[in-house]
Amino acid sequence: MIQQLALIGCGLMGGSFSLGLQRAGLVKHVVGYSPSLATRQKALVLGVIHTACASVEEACLQSDLILLATPVSAIENALKIISNVMADDAWVMDVGSTKSDIVASARRVMGKRLSQFMPAHPIAGKEKAGVTHADADLYQNRTLILTPLTETPSDLIGQATVLWKTLGSSVHQLTPDAHDQIFATVSHLPHLIAFAAMHAINQQDHAQQLLQMAGPGFKDFSRLAASDPHVWRDIFLANSTHIKQQAQLFQNAMQTWIQMMDQGDGAQLFEAIQKVSQTRSQWQIGAANQDDSN
Amino acid sequence: MIQQLALIGCGLMGGSFSLGLQRAGLVKHVVGYSPSLATRQKALVLGVIHTACASVEEACLQSDLILLATPVSAIENALKIISNVMADDAWVMDVGSTKSDIVASARRVMGKRLSQFMPAHPIAGKEKAGVTHADADLYQNRTLILTPLTETPSDLIGQATVLWKTLGSSVHQLTPDAHDQIFATVSHLPHLIAFAAMHAINQQDHAQQLLQMAGPGFKDFSRLAASDPHVWRDIFLANSTHIKQQAQLFQNAMQTWIQMMDQGDGAQLFEAIQKVSQTRSQWQIGAANQDDSN
Repeated sequence: MIQQLALIGCGLMGGSFSLGLQRAGLVKHVVGYSPSLATRQKALVLGVIHTACASVEEACLQSDLILLATPVSAIENALKIISNVMADDAWVMDVGSTKSDIVASARRVMGKRLSQFMPAHPIAGKEKAGVTHADADLYQNRTLILTPLTETPSDLIGQATVLWKTLGSSVHQLTPDAHDQIFATVSHLPHLIAFAAMHAINQQDHAQQLLQMAGPGFKDFSRLAASDPHVWRDIFLANSTHIKQQAQLFQNAMQTWIQMMDQGDGAQLFEAIQKVSQTRSQWQIGAANQDDSN
Repeated sequence: MIQQLALIGCGLMGGSFSLGLQRAGLVKHVVGYSPSLATRQKALVLGVIHTACASVEEACLQSDLILLATPVSAIENALKIISNVMADDAWVMDVGSTKSDIVASARRVMGKRLSQFMPAHPIAGKEKAGVTHADADLYQNRTLILTPLTETPSDLIGQATVLWKTLGSSVHQLTPDAHDQIFATVSHLPHLIAFAAMHAINQQDHAQQLLQMAGPGFKDFSRLAASDPHVWRDIFLANSTHIKQQAQLFQNAMQTWIQMMDQGDGAQLFEAIQKVSQTRSQWQIGAANQDDSN
């Protein structure tokens, strides 16, 4: 049982974490801080938090779990403040979409509190962000990645695992680097491609006429291009090395496919399409990853 | 009223055309040919056709409208046969996904019958092909493109327009080249990208582990990669010039985005993402293009 949970960032991710744990009866009291007074008040009204705090410091005092659910670019500064005020038996967990950079931040600023930090990434979200969309079921049937440090004690991993399983997630452990490489491949590069594809259309004359003719296939293909600029600026900056590696592999593949078209070799094209088409048809989103999300 | 409709190719597209026109009471009798006996028999059982024919020739005799709904690569040969047997007051319409190559085929083989040909492309489909999925509503609320030739008489354009409007489609006219350029941009390139992205993952060690972590965003992004190899081999071969041009614009855009990541300029990245994100958020699939399709 968590006596007091502190949300640093009362948005969709933090709010859903709080609502889920409250519903499960695993948390007694929730305090929260967001830079915006309006957000803190909405969080209060929605029951996401019971007490609104005016600063990160105030939220961390007397909290035994601090959930850091801010944009990635705000995490290092927050970890620094948290480390100065957190209790000896408290722990802090983030929910950022990249992990190596956050672990590096933690190593820079947490000092002796490093062993009280659990880096986590829930593969969940909604098209609409913000605390008004917070949902106790957001983490149901989703994947949750923990990327513990060598300094992370196993009982902390155990506590984090229990909480996320209670919220309905399937919990996996990866190194921060393996995490960032995998998500560069299956999430960050697809976003980059969708942004670049929309950019290439936008730059053409008659872009509006082109888009007017686009159908349902284009709709799905381009959905990721509607993603949030704050979130994706931070991810692209934080994980650029892995993303660039994956982009290179993708661009090589594009060249291979364009060559096949150039050569006009129908048999070769057929075989290549059949192979990827089978992979994609047989692929099923993990039981852990259903519905809408990023 | 069409006295006799001939389907050359009794699959999803042709079958849905027949069922829709029958329901609207616009056709009296439907005959059909498919190379596969089993398909012809299924089409009979489903009421898609009333008489199964053993050859293209047989189907065309006494038919006043011949709908050519075969894979693109079979169209030229079929047009040749049809031209030899069709009546003076009959007309033929295709439903192929590319138009310049089909018009060129028609010019090569149709001779004096060229003015009896109406090239058409319904922006419709289903994930599952085949006559068993034929559906009188397939063309409801979809876009239909006609690409008439200079030789096409206006009353033929009028007749085709009436039929497709009856089936629920919104009818647009384009030149064959404009059609192929537009669909290279909003359909063919997105398919190529999805195939190449899946190919790039397939080539990596631990591809299965990567795919296991992929979530709902990847699901939408990669859906087009599950498309049919026959259909897409033909499209890539038929429209390679426009697709390669669009691929080049896309690859240039990828380079621009990778450079932005390299330079680590958050403000520039934010602005670029915001711009495409707004375009995509404001875009709505045409009233003409809803639901599942390619």
